[in-house]
Amino acid sequence: MINVMEKALTPKGFRDYLPRQMRLRNFVVSILRQTFEKYGFEPLETPTLEYASTLLGKYGEEADRLVYTFKDKGDRDLGLNYDLTVPTARVLASYQQEIKLPFKRYQIQRAYRAEKPQKSRYREFTQCDIDIFGSSSPLADAEILAVINESLVAVGLTDFEIRINSRQVLFRILADSGVLETTLKMSAIQTLDKLGKISWDGVTSELIEKGLDNTQIKAIQEAVSVSQPDDVLNQVMSAAWQLGVPKERLVFSPTTARGLDYYTGVIFETVVTKAGIGSVTGGGRYDDLVKKLGGPDLPATGTTLGLDRLCDALSILYLVPEAVKGSAVTVLICLAEDAASVSNYALEVVKDLRSGGVASEIFLVSKSLDKQLKYASEKNIPWVVIIGDKEVTSNKLTVKNLKTRQQEELLLGEFKDRLAAS
Amino acid sequence: MINVMEKALTPKGFRDYLPRQMRLRNFVVSILRQTFEKYGFEPLETPTLEYASTLLGKYGEEADRLVYTFKDKGDRDLGLNYDLTVPTARVLASYQQEIKLPFKRYQIQRAYRAEKPQKSRYREFTQCDIDIFGSSSPLADAEILAVINESLVAVGLTDFEIRINSRQVLFRILADSGVLETTLKMSAIQTLDKLGKISWDGVTSELIEKGLDNTQIKAIQEAVSVSQPDDVLNQVMSAAWQLGVPKERLVFSPTTARGLDYYTGVIFETVVTKAGIGSVTGGGRYDDLVKKLGGPDLPATGTTLGLDRLCDALSILYLVPEAVKGSAVTVLICLAEDAASVSNYALEVVKDLRSGGVASEIFLVSKSLDKQLKYASEKNIPWVVIIGDKEVTSNKLTVKNLKTRQQEELLLGEFKDRLAAS
Repeated sequence: MINVMEKALTPKGFRDYLPRQMRLRNFVVSILRQTFEKYGFEPLETPTLEYASTLLGKYGEEADRLVYTFKDKGDRDLGLNYDLTVPTARVLASYQQEIKLPFKRYQIQRAYRAEKPQKSRYREFTQCDIDIFGSSSPLADAEILAVINESLVAVGLTDFEIRINSRQVLFRILADSGVLETTLKMSAIQTLDKLGKISWDGVTSELIEKGLDNTQIKAIQEAVSVSQPDDVLNQVMSAAWQLGVPKERLVFSPTTARGLDYYTGVIFETVVTKAGIGSVTGGGRYDDLVKKLGGPDLPATGTTLGLDRLCDALSILYLVPEAVKGSAVTVLICLAEDAASVSNYALEVVKDLRSGGVASEIFLVSKSLDKQLKYASEKNIPWVVIIGDKEVTSNKLTVKNLKTRQQEELLLGEFKDRLAAS
Repeated sequence: MINVMEKALTPKGFRDYLPRQMRLRNFVVSILRQTFEKYGFEPLETPTLEYASTLLGKYGEEADRLVYTFKDKGDRDLGLNYDLTVPTARVLASYQQEIKLPFKRYQIQRAYRAEKPQKSRYREFTQCDIDIFGSSSPLADAEILAVINESLVAVGLTDFEIRINSRQVLFRILADSGVLETTLKMSAIQTLDKLGKISWDGVTSELIEKGLDNTQIKAIQEAVSVSQPDDVLNQVMSAAWQLGVPKERLVFSPTTARGLDYYTGVIFETVVTKAGIGSVTGGGRYDDLVKKLGGPDLPATGTTLGLDRLCDALSILYLVPEAVKGSAVTVLICLAEDAASVSNYALEVVKDLRSGGVASEIFLVSKSLDKQLKYASEKNIPWVVIIGDKEVTSNKLTVKNLKTRQQEELLLGEFKDRLAAS
């Protein structure tokens, strides 16, 4: 073989998903989709390319620099979607007649950020967003929490913690500690958010750098330790419990802030306890954002579930289901000879198996039986059917189970019974 | 509401998919995926952005002009994937150790072309590709035809025709007519491919413009009318019949050429007879292309199924399944009062319904019962449960079926039985 592109790579921060990765991704997406729909969320998709003017100036200067923008051949300024929230704000603005409120939508799509690639951080990644637009009820926030819980359980995770807080709780902690100036408050919150990743000592030195004094920091530490959920947060948590989120899994975390500063109420994120990776979900209430992004003035709450991180967590914790580890094929039909009578028999058998719903393939290259069996075992295909002149004559199949190594001659009907029983 | 982005649009040739469109798309994709996997095809995905050098110079000058390319902030030349074949050729080159041959992959992804937008032609569209790499057997071509047939039947289409031809048949027609020069041959084939869209008269004038004379054209018309499938084509068709493609649906079409000139063997496309749109699938054998694209030297055969056109065909022929016409929600729970006891009862009910697998939502805004019922009927939600003080006291539910307009008071258990029976 000539390997002209042997070293051809994806651009840095971009990935190929080979079948072994895709099977897990498709499994997770299919579970998420089912769960979202059971909770009444409806699917939405938006283009990969938007007018740059739709994307820029929405999240602040830092994010603007991370948006992929370019001029197309018609001299239009275009950009790749940075997230799914801005495009949805545009949709909410454009289709006000068609969209019924409250609007519960899910959106599973790639997003693009020209970030410095690092562990578990890519320039192209898949977001699974659920959001409720048009409801300011604490029940809406609780619904989001319930979807997070049920989705994660459904994909196979059990050992996780949904950390919940609210902007009001954070502001009260800082107010009680004498930190009142807005910029300083927001900056201090970014530092407090790092607790868990860094210690109080680390947080203290960062806060001092930012201009807080030791008395204030001591007061903050004290205020954090006695902090309690406020009324709204209690309503949200209590409704989430009623919707099935286990009490021990929903943890009040008075320093959780999320990086972004557009939240206006509750804030939540999910950590898969033993996976040792960043949060797998992040969200909260953002009542001012849709309008700020150019959409209508609608209260909103929602979360992102990170597909890449969910798949990483399942892999790290050895929770990838057996069914997605190998090929989806149940039966490989191997041809022992090249004769037309052999391939005709094989076609008849594969057609019959497939029409009974059995995923089957014929080995399509003229190779030794050994090589055909190797292909099956490398791909984790459990059953092999061998067809040669002998089988054509006897009208039977030589059937081999690659797990038990048992080999027998069966009629097609007998083999199908065997499959149904296995 | 403030409608800052009211006129905010997608760039020309790019589309939003609202829930009503997404439900149909998700339905079609899910059927295609199941069918592909039943035939042993495995999922693959590649990045949206590739190095421009991976994309350009592969399909000729005309296609190069349609590739979206730009420089990123690191001065790298990048481009958006123009199709799914070139990225797969790169994958085949890069992962030769990991990928087992023959490699049967499916890939469902968006592709981008800076074309002049027109009816049923967009700048961003979704391709569903299945290809077999590493097999030169006619059985491989037949497998592709069988998947096309089963996929289209599975999504609900019956009245379609798979037109099949081969490059060899086309060349023989031209050779028999005295057209031997390569460029002229290829050019004449592009014109012949238009038969069906334009008449023989139209084809004749185009061929004359291209430099053929009347004797040659007459000879072509004669050769077309007596043309027969060659041996390979007969083998492919016969294997496809054995795999379940109905004979009357697989039609030998001696002028079908497909626009692209990289096919080396059989060529096929599918027309949904009464839909009045372009072909919904297109493909064939392309044994030289993977190497030409920079991949290893592998024979290949495959097809694209156009998701957008398949959805268009289902809509045009009124074949959209009932189940995807409205929201996936079965029960809307309406709150007649704002009291905590009412919402607590609602949470209990919705949790119970969902845990039984019933897609349900609570109406999350404080609005009149009329407005809540209007929401349910606009979204095609069949059942409404009304909960107010009365229901809290009686521990029953007021249940309304929006199709029969029947309203009754039921215990939760009774309602679930009703749902199970409906």
